[in-house]
Amino acid sequence: MSAYEHPDVAELALPAVLFALSDPARLEIVGRLALWREGQTPLVCASVGPDMPKSTRSHHLKVLREAGVTRSVQVGRERQLSLRRDDLDARWPGLLTAVLAGVPVPA
Amino acid sequence: MSAYEHPDVAELALPAVLFALSDPARLEIVGRLALWREGQTPLVCASVGPDMPKSTRSHHLKVLREAGVTRSVQVGRERQLSLRRDDLDARWPGLLTAVLAGVPVPA
Repeated sequence: MSAYEHPDVAELALPAVLFALSDPARLEIVGRLALWREGQTPLVCASVGPDMPKSTRSHHLKVLREAGVTRSVQVGRERQLSLRRDDLDARWPGLLTAVLAGVPVPA
Repeated sequence: MSAYEHPDVAELALPAVLFALSDPARLEIVGRLALWREGQTPLVCASVGPDMPKSTRSHHLKVLREAGVTRSVQVGRERQLSLRRDDLDARWPGLLTAVLAGVPVPA
């Protein structure tokens, strides 16, 4: 069950999505989320921005979530994060793929 | 001859390019520039942002130029504008195409 609000796919707006992606720290988070594969341990805040101060990371995660780039789900005491790849691909085919190709692979 | 500074293709940075594209007015300008075809009359400021106040348009054109999305060339009393499509395609294949597909075709 999620306490976080997320825009529906029809509500996603290109300027907001591009703005959310226009920051190196947010691109790093998105790059880490993109590496996640079905069946792996869900990603949580600490794993997507390990070197950021917590408040900075929270801010970036909020910008990404509100733009519709990521999904945050509270599961017990954990906040699990994922990339809304299908939703973004449905609205702007090829956009996320092109952006991710330009993001350095996180260590 | 151009009095404007433009980043080289190697200097283009993804966050700056995405930021430049993250505004509806700038997306409109980019959409108009994308419609231009070789052999047509060169586009000038008034033709790419016809409904914007001049100062607003100048600001947006500066953000686009400094990020490397557009090129401004002073020719006589005119400032001719173009999209750096080849440069952007070289650095981030598919990015501009995906963005343009999401921009409403200007009237």
